[in-house]
Amino acid sequence: MARLFHVPLSPFCRKVRLSLAEKKIDVELVEERYWEEDPEFMRRNPAGKVPVLKIDGVIMAESAAICEYIEETRPDPSLMPKDAIARAEVRRLVGWFDDKFHHEVTSKLLYERVNKKMMKLGYPDSKNVKAGSKAIKYHLDYMTWLLDHRRWLAGDAMSLADFAAAAHLSALDYNSDVDWNRSDVVKDWYAKIKSRPAFRNILADQVPGFPPAKHYNDLDF
Amino acid sequence: MARLFHVPLSPFCRKVRLSLAEKKIDVELVEERYWEEDPEFMRRNPAGKVPVLKIDGVIMAESAAICEYIEETRPDPSLMPKDAIARAEVRRLVGWFDDKFHHEVTSKLLYERVNKKMMKLGYPDSKNVKAGSKAIKYHLDYMTWLLDHRRWLAGDAMSLADFAAAAHLSALDYNSDVDWNRSDVVKDWYAKIKSRPAFRNILADQVPGFPPAKHYNDLDF
Repeated sequence: MARLFHVPLSPFCRKVRLSLAEKKIDVELVEERYWEEDPEFMRRNPAGKVPVLKIDGVIMAESAAICEYIEETRPDPSLMPKDAIARAEVRRLVGWFDDKFHHEVTSKLLYERVNKKMMKLGYPDSKNVKAGSKAIKYHLDYMTWLLDHRRWLAGDAMSLADFAAAAHLSALDYNSDVDWNRSDVVKDWYAKIKSRPAFRNILADQVPGFPPAKHYNDLDF
Repeated sequence: MARLFHVPLSPFCRKVRLSLAEKKIDVELVEERYWEEDPEFMRRNPAGKVPVLKIDGVIMAESAAICEYIEETRPDPSLMPKDAIARAEVRRLVGWFDDKFHHEVTSKLLYERVNKKMMKLGYPDSKNVKAGSKAIKYHLDYMTWLLDHRRWLAGDAMSLADFAAAAHLSALDYNSDVDWNRSDVVKDWYAKIKSRPAFRNILADQVPGFPPAKHYNDLDF
């Protein structure tokens, strides 16, 4: 069985968990306090980050590499379109969320409030929290624009881009950091993703010391 | 003909330029002062970043998406192995350089010294420069370890991982920020990459106000 070293609220780990679950790949989840730099974990991934996936007898790191590997070796059901231009659009949006959204929103809200406390790095920086709360509005508007033109974020079929976005938004939603009233199309999109069987495991997450928002696992939020 | 919107010292743009050149794809280079957020450029890439590539009638953003697209549509000569596990290793290392190395080194040295001045954001932060100068040693040691075990960074064939690494190191080398005496194997590896025809265009870069280091375009450095 595959084994994933992860932390529950990491959007990068959640993207991998969603991919594995959508493709019905059994996985054992192992929580890894990667910031403690345990030597055994550092051997698995010298980058010192999660997710790290043990699968097919090898150890893999970097969520983009892991998701592409899962897609190449378990193509059914597919999370990538066949057409090269459409694939580039999926990857552009995965990059959008894992780089831009992460830098402007996730790292400013979730990391300030949760990771800093877990890692004993002090109190949230209110300037960052304010910047993150402002930036998420712009991102929700961009998602609205995309979803006004397409059924899913990258095109007419659900793809890794939707999982990347849902991974970030679900981690933020755990702390009530997403204003679902801002956009009906984004809310509808999230309701569709949230009701997938692949999402169940993520909705069951409980982080000690950080209870989830009341609506977090409510499919009718 | 393809058209690339870029800045000369951006490692992400250099990775794309190297891929295009290695595959002998003609490209027109257009310098884009992306930080000025010209509305026409923001329409091309709402993320407001370079590289942006116009190719095959469409506009693409995100260097990872662009390089995968080039590889899928122009597979010869290949920059990715055929085997899925080997491909994951290439992508892991591309992520290593474009995320970890970029965060710990490139953004601390190049961005403090060059980008800040170009963007009129003030003087370099000496704490960052010091942290970057320290971190690059650790990264050169990790590259040494890899190259002690393999002919190229991700395996026995040159790949996108080598181009990602060379893109960062060449941009840093422009300002003499790489100590080539630290590791013979890394120096030999860079000499091999540097002497490829695909590298010529990059070695000819000249940024107004920032003359390159004397050895920058010397193949016998």
